[in-house]
Amino acid sequence: MAEEIAKNAHKASTILKTLTDKQRSDALYKIRDGLLLSKDKILLANKIDMENAISNNLSNSLIKRLDLSINNKFDSMCNGIIDVAKLDDPINNCTLATELDDNLNLYRLTCPVGVLLIIFESRPEVIANITALAIKSGNAAILKGGKESLNTFKEMSLIINEILINKTDIPINSIQLINTRDEVSNLLNQDKFIDLVIPRGSNELVKNIKNNTKIPVLGHADGICSIYLDKDLDINKAIKIIIDSKTNYPAGCNAVETLLIDSNLSKENETKILKSLLNSKINLHIDSNLLNKIDKSLIDNYSNQIILANDEDFNKEFLSLDIAIKNVNNVQDAILHINEHSSKHTESIITENEETANIFLKGIDSSGVYWNCSTRFADGFRYGFGTEVGISTNKIHSRGPVGLEGLVCYYYQLRGNGQVVGDYLGGGGTRVFKHKQLDPSKIHL
Amino acid sequence: MAEEIAKNAHKASTILKTLTDKQRSDALYKIRDGLLLSKDKILLANKIDMENAISNNLSNSLIKRLDLSINNKFDSMCNGIIDVAKLDDPINNCTLATELDDNLNLYRLTCPVGVLLIIFESRPEVIANITALAIKSGNAAILKGGKESLNTFKEMSLIINEILINKTDIPINSIQLINTRDEVSNLLNQDKFIDLVIPRGSNELVKNIKNNTKIPVLGHADGICSIYLDKDLDINKAIKIIIDSKTNYPAGCNAVETLLIDSNLSKENETKILKSLLNSKINLHIDSNLLNKIDKSLIDNYSNQIILANDEDFNKEFLSLDIAIKNVNNVQDAILHINEHSSKHTESIITENEETANIFLKGIDSSGVYWNCSTRFADGFRYGFGTEVGISTNKIHSRGPVGLEGLVCYYYQLRGNGQVVGDYLGGGGTRVFKHKQLDPSKIHL
Repeated sequence: MAEEIAKNAHKASTILKTLTDKQRSDALYKIRDGLLLSKDKILLANKIDMENAISNNLSNSLIKRLDLSINNKFDSMCNGIIDVAKLDDPINNCTLATELDDNLNLYRLTCPVGVLLIIFESRPEVIANITALAIKSGNAAILKGGKESLNTFKEMSLIINEILINKTDIPINSIQLINTRDEVSNLLNQDKFIDLVIPRGSNELVKNIKNNTKIPVLGHADGICSIYLDKDLDINKAIKIIIDSKTNYPAGCNAVETLLIDSNLSKENETKILKSLLNSKINLHIDSNLLNKIDKSLIDNYSNQIILANDEDFNKEFLSLDIAIKNVNNVQDAILHINEHSSKHTESIITENEETANIFLKGIDSSGVYWNCSTRFADGFRYGFGTEVGISTNKIHSRGPVGLEGLVCYYYQLRGNGQVVGDYLGGGGTRVFKHKQLDPSKIHL
Repeated sequence: MAEEIAKNAHKASTILKTLTDKQRSDALYKIRDGLLLSKDKILLANKIDMENAISNNLSNSLIKRLDLSINNKFDSMCNGIIDVAKLDDPINNCTLATELDDNLNLYRLTCPVGVLLIIFESRPEVIANITALAIKSGNAAILKGGKESLNTFKEMSLIINEILINKTDIPINSIQLINTRDEVSNLLNQDKFIDLVIPRGSNELVKNIKNNTKIPVLGHADGICSIYLDKDLDINKAIKIIIDSKTNYPAGCNAVETLLIDSNLSKENETKILKSLLNSKINLHIDSNLLNKIDKSLIDNYSNQIILANDEDFNKEFLSLDIAIKNVNNVQDAILHINEHSSKHTESIITENEETANIFLKGIDSSGVYWNCSTRFADGFRYGFGTEVGISTNKIHSRGPVGLEGLVCYYYQLRGNGQVVGDYLGGGGTRVFKHKQLDPSKIHL
C-alpha cells in the first residue's frame, strides 16, 4: 500500500514537472476558489476536531492551533495560496549555460526535487500551504496529518482532490492525503520513490523521522540558539535583543536558549542585563563559575529564578522562560562553545566592535549568524521569502528558512548534433572543448 | 578513536573556513612543491604497492590504476593541484542580499559544507586531488584509502601533513589520512561531526556506505544509462552515438546499458543499427517481443552475440560490451520506462524531431538528459568544471558531475543595529519590513 502510494506519486511527479507555470498556478486559483466555496463545510469539520480536542483535554495552545475559525485564519489560508501562485516560477530556470563545442550546448535547469512526503501535526492550514508550494514547484506530495485534525483534514483533502481532478491539468495522485497512522513507517522506507521528507511538528516527531528513514529530511529537530554578549556591547541594544529573543515567543525554535557573557564585560553591565532578564520573569540557569561572581543582591532578591546550571542545560532547548548562562573568555571561546553545543540554527553577537563581530560572523557554523539583532528574525516571512516550508539545520541543500528554492534542484540538458566522446581529447580523439560560458539569463528552453 | 578523529576535523573546519582564499590557495602551491620534491620517495612506496598487487594476483586494470609512474601521472597529479588553486574562490560569495529594514541587512553567503569523509579505492592520485578540493573549498577532510595503495598513501600523507603543519596557515587536522580498516564503520556513525561522505570506487563500496550511515552520501551506486532511438532519427548519428556510448569506455558509469527502440522506426534502420552493434562485438540482450521481429539473418549470422533478455537485464549496469534492448511505442513510453528503471544518471534521445526531443528533455527524471549526443559526455572535465568530486545521482544538493560547488552550501548573515522582532508586524509590533532586494554581486563581506 505504501509502495503503491509512493509509486503513484512518482509517476504523477514526472508529468507534473512538464506542465507550464500557468497550468500549475491556475490550479492554485482553482483550489482557493473551491476552498472558499466550501468554507462552511470545512469549518464544520474543524468544529468536530475542536470538540474532540476539548473532550480529550488537549492543551489550550494545541486547541488554538487547531482552530481554523479564529483570527481570520481561513481567509489568510486562502490568500496564502494565491501569494504562492504569484511567485516567480521556480523551475525551468537556466542557471548555467556553456557552449562545449559547435552545436553542443550544456544547460543547467532548475527542476522539482520530485516526490515530497510531508508529515505534520495539528495545524490544518498546512494542508493548503503545502499543496500550494508543492504544485507551484512541480513536486508531487504525500501529506500525512495528525490525528487531532483528522476531520478537517479529510474534508479539505476531498475538496482539493476533487478540484484537481475535475478543474485543472494537474495529474491524478499529485497530491495524496493519507490519514492512517501505520502508513508512515512504511512510507519512510520508500526511498526509491520519495525524494525528500519534510516533518512539521514537535522535536520528537522530527527526531523520530530522522532516525527511521534513508530519505533526506529537511527540517530541524532542535533550535538551540545562542547570544554572545561581547565586552564592547551597547547595553540598551543588548537588553532589548535578549528580552525579545527569549520572550517574544519562547516556544519558537528561534528563541534564544543560551547566553554567553564575555568575562571582560563590566560588572555593572552584567548586573543590569541579569536584572532585566529576572524582571522579565526569566529563570536563569547559571553555571557555577559565574554564579560565584554575580552581584549577591540578585541572589537575595530573585532566589526563585536563579538556578545552578548543569552541563546539560547548555545542550537544551527550554522552549520556556528559561535560559542557560555562562562566562566565556572572548569571542573565540564563544565560537568554540557554540560550534560544539548549538544545533546550527541561529546565533547572535551583541557588540559595537566591528572586528569582533566579523570574527563571530565568519567563525560560527550555523545557518543564521546575526550581529546586533534578535534571533527571532530567523523566519521565511521576515527574510522576505513570502512563504516557508520550514527551517533547515542541515549542512547541505537548504539551510535556514526554506522557501520554494528548497523544493527545487537542477539537471543538465546537453543538446548536440551527433557528437561522440571518442572524437575528443581525453576520449581517444583530438578535438578540444571550447567551454565558452554563455549568459544563462538569456536562455529560455 | 573515530569520534576523536571526527571531532578534531570539525574543530579544524571551523578555523579553516575563516582563512582567506590566498591562505588556502597558497597552501596548495606548497603541497605541490613538497610532492614534487619527494617524487622519488613516493614512487618508491608506490613500487612496493605495485609489487604487492602483482604477487597478490590483482587484475591488470587495478594494477594500472595503482601505478603512479606511468602516463606522466605523477606530474599531472601535481599540476591538478595548481589547477584547483587557480579556480575562483567558491566560498564567501554573496548570492542574495536583502535590506529588511533601515540598518538591518540580510546576506546569503556561500560557505564550506564542513567536514568531508572521503573513502576511495585504488587510485592514489585521489589523495592529492581531494586534498586540493577540500582545502580550496574550506572543508576539513578525513581520507580513507584502499589497502592496495597503502604504502603510497602513507608516504603521501606524511609529506602533505608535514607541509601543512610547517609551511601553511591550514589548521592541524584539516586533512586527516587514516588507513585502518575498522575505523570506517565507526566514522560513518559520526553524523554529529561529519557532514558529507564521498565514496569513490566500486558500486559495492558505494552501496555499502549508503546502507550504513545517516550522513548524506554524495555519489552514485549505479550508472544505468539509456538511449532512446526515435522513429525520426538520423541513422548515421544514431549509430555513431550508440557505439561511442557503449564502447568508448564500457566500464564507465556513463556508458549506455539500455537501448529503447521506437516500434515505428523503419525495419531497415533497425537492422542497420543492430548490425553495427553486433559488428562492434557488442552482445545484444533483446527482449522476446523484439527478438521475434528482428531480421532473421542477424540471428543466423551473430547467434553468439544475441541473447534473450530477462526483466533484470533492464535494471542492470553491465559494465561490459553488453546492452539490453527493447521496443517502446513512443517517446512517452520511453520516458516511463526510463523513469522507472534508470538510476537517474544520464539518458539520451536520438531524433531529428525537436518537438519529440523537448518532450524527452523535460520528462526524464535524471541528472543528465541529452539530445543527439553520447551519454559519455557526463563528466566534470567535459562539462568544463575543471575538476570533479564525483557524479551524483542524488535528487537534492548536487546532481550530475560535481565540482567545487558541490562542496559548498550557504548561511545567512543578518547585520542589525539593535532590532527586535517585537517591534514588527507579525511579532507584536507595527513596523513593516522593506524587503528591498540589493545586488548581491556588489556585496563583499
